[in-house]
Amino acid sequence: MTASSLQTKTWKKLEASAERMALPENHLKHLVSQKDRFSGFSCSGGGLFLDYSRQRVDHDVMRLLRELAEELDVRQIFSDTVNGAVINRTENRAALHTAARDFSGRPVYAEGTDVMPEIRRVREEIRDFSDQVLKAKLVGTTGKPFRHAVVIGIGGSYLGTQFVASALQSMADNGIELHFLSNVDIDCFGTIVEQVDPEATLWIVISKSYTTTETSANENLAKNFLLRCGLTPEDHMIAITSKGSPGDDPSNPVRQVFHMFDFIGGRFSVSSAVGGVPLSLYLGYDCFEKFLKGAEEMDRHAQSAPAESNLPLISALISIWNNNFLGYPACGIIPYSTPLSRLPAHIQQLYMESTGKAVTQKGEPVGIDTGVIMFGEPGTNAQHSFFQLAHQGRPVPMDFLGVVRPHHSGYKNASKGVTNHQELWANLIAQPQALACGSTNEAQPARNFPGNRPSSVILLSSLSPENIGRLLAFYEARTVYEAFIWDINPFDQYGVELGKTMASGIREQMADRNNDPCRSFDTGEPIADAYLEILFSNL
Amino acid sequence: MTASSLQTKTWKKLEASAERMALPENHLKHLVSQKDRFSGFSCSGGGLFLDYSRQRVDHDVMRLLRELAEELDVRQIFSDTVNGAVINRTENRAALHTAARDFSGRPVYAEGTDVMPEIRRVREEIRDFSDQVLKAKLVGTTGKPFRHAVVIGIGGSYLGTQFVASALQSMADNGIELHFLSNVDIDCFGTIVEQVDPEATLWIVISKSYTTTETSANENLAKNFLLRCGLTPEDHMIAITSKGSPGDDPSNPVRQVFHMFDFIGGRFSVSSAVGGVPLSLYLGYDCFEKFLKGAEEMDRHAQSAPAESNLPLISALISIWNNNFLGYPACGIIPYSTPLSRLPAHIQQLYMESTGKAVTQKGEPVGIDTGVIMFGEPGTNAQHSFFQLAHQGRPVPMDFLGVVRPHHSGYKNASKGVTNHQELWANLIAQPQALACGSTNEAQPARNFPGNRPSSVILLSSLSPENIGRLLAFYEARTVYEAFIWDINPFDQYGVELGKTMASGIREQMADRNNDPCRSFDTGEPIADAYLEILFSNL
Repeated sequence: MTASSLQTKTWKKLEASAERMALPENHLKHLVSQKDRFSGFSCSGGGLFLDYSRQRVDHDVMRLLRELAEELDVRQIFSDTVNGAVINRTENRAALHTAARDFSGRPVYAEGTDVMPEIRRVREEIRDFSDQVLKAKLVGTTGKPFRHAVVIGIGGSYLGTQFVASALQSMADNGIELHFLSNVDIDCFGTIVEQVDPEATLWIVISKSYTTTETSANENLAKNFLLRCGLTPEDHMIAITSKGSPGDDPSNPVRQVFHMFDFIGGRFSVSSAVGGVPLSLYLGYDCFEKFLKGAEEMDRHAQSAPAESNLPLISALISIWNNNFLGYPACGIIPYSTPLSRLPAHIQQLYMESTGKAVTQKGEPVGIDTGVIMFGEPGTNAQHSFFQLAHQGRPVPMDFLGVVRPHHSGYKNASKGVTNHQELWANLIAQPQALACGSTNEAQPARNFPGNRPSSVILLSSLSPENIGRLLAFYEARTVYEAFIWDINPFDQYGVELGKTMASGIREQMADRNNDPCRSFDTGEPIADAYLEILFSNL
Repeated sequence: MTASSLQTKTWKKLEASAERMALPENHLKHLVSQKDRFSGFSCSGGGLFLDYSRQRVDHDVMRLLRELAEELDVRQIFSDTVNGAVINRTENRAALHTAARDFSGRPVYAEGTDVMPEIRRVREEIRDFSDQVLKAKLVGTTGKPFRHAVVIGIGGSYLGTQFVASALQSMADNGIELHFLSNVDIDCFGTIVEQVDPEATLWIVISKSYTTTETSANENLAKNFLLRCGLTPEDHMIAITSKGSPGDDPSNPVRQVFHMFDFIGGRFSVSSAVGGVPLSLYLGYDCFEKFLKGAEEMDRHAQSAPAESNLPLISALISIWNNNFLGYPACGIIPYSTPLSRLPAHIQQLYMESTGKAVTQKGEPVGIDTGVIMFGEPGTNAQHSFFQLAHQGRPVPMDFLGVVRPHHSGYKNASKGVTNHQELWANLIAQPQALACGSTNEAQPARNFPGNRPSSVILLSSLSPENIGRLLAFYEARTVYEAFIWDINPFDQYGVELGKTMASGIREQMADRNNDPCRSFDTGEPIADAYLEILFSNL
């Protein structure tokens, strides 16, 4: 059963189009040789450039996809979201990550209250706090200025921040090293404490509920570590959490608390204090604000640009075309830029956690596969890794990302007549073409390339903070547009709960055994009991 | 058309079994509750433990899969490979990565010549060289001991080494920092030179042919950098390359050349000098040899253990079952151990480059999808990222990896009554169970978990060098076993050639334009020309 929202005439027409596009005359090698292919299937907007000329679409397909978007009224839903509608229905909340980078001065209402004053207040707190730390007005227990910041947070509490920090690493000249303590794995904590100077380290605990198991366990370790070092935990720790959470309580004294809001979900939270505090320490508040302004520009584009030139919407429609009509189960995210190497991991979370859903907003089965598998590594590295499969094995649509001007533009040595950056681009240009066109070799079948493998190219003019903000907001908007087309809720994540509940039962067994070494395990699941025995017999 | 080798009776029986396993009574929640499920579907061997009790198999399916392996004689093909058969037929070569860790003293013949004396000679050279560097008998131009080693190499020339180095990072006490300069991206080089002390840096150039474009470009940059620093390149560079390559030529003076062999492919080369030199500098030669001995143990297990208890073969058969019979296009590699965080990237290359093929060894179409998409992040991080999709969206089979004893066992603070390592295991135990069993919630469809999602668990007793060797060899053997079942060549990679050829044409256009700024672009592909204009107008 397919959700009624997708039983439209246009959906059926698109199914017919998919059959047409599978005909030999619609092989990409023919499509790309058409006059005006590039200009007809590419556009600029929100500060980025999108080329979908190597996607398996023609003007008819694009027109139908836009009609689908119009039928389902997704641009209106996007606008409603930006304006504070309760779009996260299962959790009865707005989804206002866009408000976190709204500098327009207009009010944004969630449940009748303008959220902007609170957002501005937090931004000012971030600016003041990072200024004080960077000017060494705020120092550790022994008077040492902070030189290390450790983010304690998992999932959405660090992936976006890690992506932005690594993308802008070459601008990090504040003398602060940024570390991420995400996993509950003790080897994660053990490795970080070997790298930091405890007296010069600030621990940033990030959890909306302040009850996230991994984060609480690591916070507990950090506190004990500080005490063992003779330092005062409240001098060295800050919290980013919801108003009224256990972390926002005088019984949990920290240097400062920054609020996050229930209308901004974890994977969309890098524009809030979640990204704001660590990034302002690492890069400076001004740089963080430039990042926000880039994201704001893309938000406005995503909301107001017509479907014909709306980058996130076009990209969302093509993603659905590749998934639901052409049947590709995955998408590669391939940045031809090493500083963007953590983009795939961030998009993997953002996209797969938002779109990996089985029911519509009304709780009906969607009836089709929603999200695809997102993965990737930087190019050209990926070419020497899994691209063999992409060229000759199972086809994988790709998003190639290019940066026109690199950070390090000073090295002009040429090899084979070109600079390294030009060599990088020679590959960025060649790969989509090779995937699309292929090359026939009947004499040597192992050298035959079927081609007809789709990809897009997204270009950034440079690795500026604004462009990183635009790129982040582009993928956020694309993700929610896809969800709106399927009529699923991109803002909840009930799929992570069952594992948490089961882990909780197993943890209790462990805790009981820790208290009483004679106690035997009884989780009710013989396999779980067997693993508990393995772990405890080797401790 | 399906390759004749797969048109067997057993293949057809397996297709019928897949229909049977899709029946509601064969949902994993029922299978795992069967008596002796765990003991009947798990085994130890080669120093590792494999649990496939949460795979969608029963004894009949496993018996048929083993029969398939027997029909196709894959254990014999594996033995022939280890004994030097010309198994890489398209390139007319043996595939003897196993010889690189053979300490048995027996000869191993490739094309009539015993390869072992050469392998032992290179191992001794590695031991002597690393000893001399670590004892500061070999120093840089200005007399400074080496403190940084930069591996210049891409794909198989670094991914395996990077995985092993990060897995064993906590044993790296030689005072050498290891860096990887893989991508041709100038931001990769630019970032590394900001981190190293040129006088104390050794550059390790790794390329079998010594013509890999990215590696040559980076070698060229490194040489120029050394000269600008007033240092002598040949004091600071070594080469790992084939005998007689341009890197093994007196006109390219380097401190020392270590040979690699054409019978060891890049993605299988971490046991050769490719991994040996950097790992011996980083961890010490003794540690590297322990790693090799662990791999050797798994090789012997993979070759000699009967199918019923052969971990790599069982794992390969289940991978094929999931892919070709149950229709899953991907597999997650989820190490519950942060030091194993680069395992997914290494396996991604090893597996997808080896199995992403469309033709058999005889050049016939395989007719079915071979390799799947391999990707992953460490657990529990992955739970807070893409596991939403794995639980409620598109099913993804998983390899969960667990480590019984962590490196950092000293932190015993408990949160919720358990240590961090126990908490990690509570999740490692809970996730396969949650994926398998699911949980029905008719009242709240958004909280419904369909379950029946397959996974395996692989256990290491600790993060010892031996265990890392076993794990690496396990995945190598599993990969080639899968390829042998499909009768494809896991050792070639013609799929990467078309892109290289096309990049070469584009590079020539760039070089010509660099020489003559008035020249216009004409690659014959209007889209490529447009990108060249974008790049050059912004330089």
